Amino acid sequence: MTINRQVVLASYVIDAAKSENFAMSEGPIPEPAEGQFLLRNMYFSMEPAIRGWVDGKANYFEPIPIGGVIRGPSVGQVVKSCNPDFAEGEYVFALNQWEDYSICHSDAILLEKLKPEAGIPLSYYVGSLGGAGATAYIGLHEVGQIKAGQTVVVSAAAGATGSMAGQIAKLCGCKVIGIVGSDDKAELIVEQFGFDAAVNYKTDDIAAAVMAIAPEGVDIYFDNVGGPVLNAMLKTMNVYGRIVACGMISDYNRTDNPNPITNLWEMVSRQLTMQGFLLPTYQDKVPAAMAQLEEWIRAGVITVLENITDGIVNTPKAFCELMSGKTVGKALVKVDTN
Amino acid sequence: MTINRQVVLASYVIDAAKSENFAMSEGPIPEPAEGQFLLRNMYFSMEPAIRGWVDGKANYFEPIPIGGVIRGPSVGQVVKSCNPDFAEGEYVFALNQWEDYSICHSDAILLEKLKPEAGIPLSYYVGSLGGAGATAYIGLHEVGQIKAGQTVVVSAAAGATGSMAGQIAKLCGCKVIGIVGSDDKAELIVEQFGFDAAVNYKTDDIAAAVMAIAPEGVDIYFDNVGGPVLNAMLKTMNVYGRIVACGMISDYNRTDNPNPITNLWEMVSRQLTMQGFLLPTYQDKVPAAMAQLEEWIRAGVITVLENITDGIVNTPKAFCELMSGKTVGKALVKVDTN
Repeated sequence: MTINRQVVLASYVIDAAKSENFAMSEGPIPEPAEGQFLLRNMYFSMEPAIRGWVDGKANYFEPIPIGGVIRGPSVGQVVKSCNPDFAEGEYVFALNQWEDYSICHSDAILLEKLKPEAGIPLSYYVGSLGGAGATAYIGLHEVGQIKAGQTVVVSAAAGATGSMAGQIAKLCGCKVIGIVGSDDKAELIVEQFGFDAAVNYKTDDIAAAVMAIAPEGVDIYFDNVGGPVLNAMLKTMNVYGRIVACGMISDYNRTDNPNPITNLWEMVSRQLTMQGFLLPTYQDKVPAAMAQLEEWIRAGVITVLENITDGIVNTPKAFCELMSGKTVGKALVKVDTN
Repeated sequence: MTINRQVVLASYVIDAAKSENFAMSEGPIPEPAEGQFLLRNMYFSMEPAIRGWVDGKANYFEPIPIGGVIRGPSVGQVVKSCNPDFAEGEYVFALNQWEDYSICHSDAILLEKLKPEAGIPLSYYVGSLGGAGATAYIGLHEVGQIKAGQTVVVSAAAGATGSMAGQIAKLCGCKVIGIVGSDDKAELIVEQFGFDAAVNYKTDDIAAAVMAIAPEGVDIYFDNVGGPVLNAMLKTMNVYGRIVACGMISDYNRTDNPNPITNLWEMVSRQLTMQGFLLPTYQDKVPAAMAQLEEWIRAGVITVLENITDGIVNTPKAFCELMSGKTVGKALVKVDTN
């Protein structure tokens, strides 16, 4: 336990991420300076947003350089602290790195001190009670301005954020349709997550299928995918409808050749609002969201589906599988002890 | 004066509007029923939005049928009234039709009773003090949430709405860049309308040119054109920037083959808000907007540029010229007396 294993970028990712784009590296366990604390990482959250940081291009973060450690949200336990607000033994969620031990501090992005409740697995705080749950809850409320009785469509509905968004929208009293990429996922979101209906974007005419299920039109589209699904959804929106632009995973593997959107006229014609958002902007809304989600999970009205990969060396593989679209539920890595 | 001349749709418009798509028709002057009043139309407002109503496809209005009279905003004078709120001799702005005489009523779309001030030409109430001025003012304030010190970019900046939006943004204390399609228009908007700078989208790299003039980034993009200009502007926006989606004229002549937008990822990455709007939604905001615009026009701090075509029979020609992008300022038709 004197070595810090790290997953680093071996080559910039072009199109689909491959395991060869990543490599393992080892170094000494870092020492926290004044104000910092050292985390033993326990779970890494696999998130599509990470794809945007490994192609050598700046977006809302600086790109990760070749040889740099991969940035990603994790849950860890404080093992050494030079910060009076974080004591040894406490649990923390934050944007850290894919490594055994991370240096963290009070201003870390997405930082949240966890108080895991008895009966709720710690891993839930990576997904349903971490970034995915907070993103779904805050996106629907702050950006989507969700109200009971509305019709809500969620894409990537079998994924970590989508499955939470659908369940939250149901609990808010909405009719909820999920868009997925396979019949298995379609069955899953209706039977396990309680969506009212599912549309398979690979086999259905998306707009026609949505309008058949929801002839009243769509009030909120929670978009995780962009591209052709977004393009089709523009034709299903009600006047004054809101598009929560959470992610555009359909373009993350093709950043040099993004899918064209041709129905943007509907933005004017239907007086739509499309708003992009990133969770760190709404950090002050996270505690209330978490409290509500914990209550729902304790009450058993939200189903959490996890997809756990064991071992830090398997992190690249877990990430590549997530990006291939084959996984369901929350993909995370359980860091082994070395 | 016993005949009502009307401009009707002879054939659905495909791609660019042509004079042959329209025809003249004659009928009796209609009689107002209880609650209605009869207007003698004096000015027709030529507006790109009309293009969306003459192709046989539904958008936010029913399409105008073949043989149907063209729908369009006009200023007229009440010549016969069966409505106690509208007296003979009063002036009215409303969404009427391209004809000598229109039947109007209290619930007409865009209806506004005019009280033309001495020294302000009646024609101003068609554009700068009509739909174009109200759209520019309300779009910047209600949708753009404009604040002093921001950087604002306006497309179709030499047009009726764009030239007003640029001047209003300047009066709000903003830095204002206009995007136009010729060097003559570039000169016009800087010298006559007081824009800080102009970009020619036909010869300049739009995003690079905007960023060279405004390295601080763009806070509000008032979009009248959509298409490649919108696509480029997405790359210039500041975090939390707002796109006022007022119109997408670049696609109106190519509704079957709209320009693809490929930079929509910036909506998420920069946390942008894009909001489409149509003036009738904000009818309650029009009186205050008009009062402010009248004050500015009386004070001589807003320049009104008009492009007046004489005679109802020349209405199709005036509309086609507007849609060709060759005109500057407010295009309107002065209805002759028959």
